[in-house]
Amino acid sequence: MHIGFIGLGQMGIAMAHNLLKNDHSLAVHNRTRDKAEPLIRAGATWASSPAEAAYEADVVFTMVSDDAALRDVTMGELGLLNGLSEEAVHVSCSTISPDTARQLAQEHQHRNSRYVASPVFGKPEVAQAGKLWVCVSGETTAKEDVRPFLNLIGQGIFDFGDDPGAANVVKLSGNFLLGCAIEAMAEAFTLGEKNNISRTSLYEFFSTTLFASPVYKNYGKLIADEVYQPVGATPALIRKDMRLLLDEAQKALVPMPFADIVFQQLTATVAKGKTDIDWAGFAGEVSEKAGVVRPKS
Amino acid sequence: MHIGFIGLGQMGIAMAHNLLKNDHSLAVHNRTRDKAEPLIRAGATWASSPAEAAYEADVVFTMVSDDAALRDVTMGELGLLNGLSEEAVHVSCSTISPDTARQLAQEHQHRNSRYVASPVFGKPEVAQAGKLWVCVSGETTAKEDVRPFLNLIGQGIFDFGDDPGAANVVKLSGNFLLGCAIEAMAEAFTLGEKNNISRTSLYEFFSTTLFASPVYKNYGKLIADEVYQPVGATPALIRKDMRLLLDEAQKALVPMPFADIVFQQLTATVAKGKTDIDWAGFAGEVSEKAGVVRPKS
Repeated sequence: MHIGFIGLGQMGIAMAHNLLKNDHSLAVHNRTRDKAEPLIRAGATWASSPAEAAYEADVVFTMVSDDAALRDVTMGELGLLNGLSEEAVHVSCSTISPDTARQLAQEHQHRNSRYVASPVFGKPEVAQAGKLWVCVSGETTAKEDVRPFLNLIGQGIFDFGDDPGAANVVKLSGNFLLGCAIEAMAEAFTLGEKNNISRTSLYEFFSTTLFASPVYKNYGKLIADEVYQPVGATPALIRKDMRLLLDEAQKALVPMPFADIVFQQLTATVAKGKTDIDWAGFAGEVSEKAGVVRPKS
Repeated sequence: MHIGFIGLGQMGIAMAHNLLKNDHSLAVHNRTRDKAEPLIRAGATWASSPAEAAYEADVVFTMVSDDAALRDVTMGELGLLNGLSEEAVHVSCSTISPDTARQLAQEHQHRNSRYVASPVFGKPEVAQAGKLWVCVSGETTAKEDVRPFLNLIGQGIFDFGDDPGAANVVKLSGNFLLGCAIEAMAEAFTLGEKNNISRTSLYEFFSTTLFASPVYKNYGKLIADEVYQPVGATPALIRKDMRLLLDEAQKALVPMPFADIVFQQLTATVAKGKTDIDWAGFAGEVSEKAGVVRPKS
C-alpha cells in the first residue's frame, strides 16, 4: 500500500519510520525538508507539498502542531485534499480541537474521501518503539481500513465511536489527567521536601505502590529530580492543549477547577521564558512559589 | 510474643486478625466491646482498657480515627502508657498529624518505651489480605524490632527515617494524591459524558494504559459508575486528613492549590449530609456542579 505522511516533528518522524515496515511505500512532507532526510535514506520519497504526499496514497497521516497547521496542510492551496483520491483515508494524529476534527471530516465527506481522528499518547521514544496508545473515532469502515497501519505505530487502539471529535476530547482529557498528576506530585514532593523527606523517597514509594503506572513512574522521576530533559513536548505546546480543553469545558458547561490551575501553571512557565524544557517542568512553579531555591547547575 | 491491639474499626479488625497468625497472643481493646467478638472467638483476649491491652505486651498497635482518640488511648488515665513495659514498642497506625506523632514519641521516651509511626495504605479488603503498604519512621532499633509484625499486615514496608512525624507526612501526602486522582478523573469523565463519551469507556482506556495503577483502577471504577459503595473511609474521615495536610502546608509555607480544591469538595460533600458513602463520592460534586442529573435509583 502507498502511504503519505505530513509533519515530521519528533513524533511524526518516529511514526513514519514504523510505517515503512511491511513493505509499504511512503511519501513524506514537512515544512522544512532536512527533517525528512533520515526517512528518505530509509526508503521514503520526498513530496514537495501536502497535496503531493497525498497523491495516489491509500492512507495519508498528519502529525502537526496545532489546528491552524492542520487546516493549512489539509485545506490550503497545496493541501492534501487537493491530492487525495476518493475513498482514501486521512488519519489525523495531531492534538486538535474536536470541532476542527468535525469540520475536516465534513470536508472529506464532500470530496468522497474519509477522515479518521487518531490522536496518540506517548513520548517520542514510545513512538519510536511503535508502542503508542491510539484513540480513534469516525466512520466505522474507515476505522477498520486503517487499523493495520495503526497497528504499526501503536500497541493498542481504543475506539470512541462515530463522532470524529470524540477521540480528540479523549486526547485533551488525557493531557489534562497528566497535568493533574504532575501538579499533584509537585505539591506533595515539595511538602515532603520542606519536611526533610526527600523528593526521591516519596517518588519511589508512590510510583511503586498506589500509583505504579507509566505516568507516575516517568513524569514522577522528572519531578523528583527536577530535571526536565529531554523535551518530550514543550510547555507552550501543551498549554495550547489545556486551552483547547478549557474551551470544551466552557462549551459543555463543566466547571474544571484542576484544569484552571494546570493552565495557569503552564502560562507562568511560558511567560517566564522556560521554553526549552519538557512541559512537566511547570512543576517548578510549585517549588518556586514555596520559596525553594535550587543551586544553579 | 504478646501483642496488644487498640481500635477495632474496619481496618483494625482486619489487621488484628492477621497478627493472630504465627502463634502470637493478642489482647484487644475497643471503645465498644461487640467489635471484638470475632477476634475473641479466633483466640484473642479482651482487655477492658488500653492500659490493660498494653500490659506485658511486647508490641501494642493502635488504629483509631483521629489525633484526639489516639491521645486518649495513649495518655488518658487508662491509656496504654500506664500499662506498657519499658522497651515495649507502640506501633501507631492511625492517620494523625505529624506533630502529634512527635509528641507521643517524646512521651514514650520519657518512660523508656518506644514509638514507631506506622500509618498504612489500603482499603479494608486489602488489610484483610495482609497486603497493606506500611510507611514507618522513628528510632531505628524500634523499627527493626517491629518489622516481623508489620510483615504480617503488609506487603511492603517503606522507611522514612528517624523523625516520628515523617511517615505521617507521607500518609497525608498519599491521601492528598488519591484525592487529586479522584477530582481529576471526575472532571475528565464529566467532560467526556457531556460530549457523549461514556464515563466507562474513558475509565477503561485510562486505567489500562497511562494510568494502569491500583488507585486509578479501583477509585476510577467508583467514579465511572458513580456508585460509592462499599464505604472504605467516609468523606468526613478523609476531610480530617485534608485539614491536617493543609495545616502542614500552612506551617511549611507550601501553596497547594489542588489540596484547597479537594478539601472544599469534601467539605461540600459532608455539609450536604452525604456521610454514608465512600469518600471518593466527593466526585459527585463535579457532576452536580456540571448540572448532570441522575435518575434516582
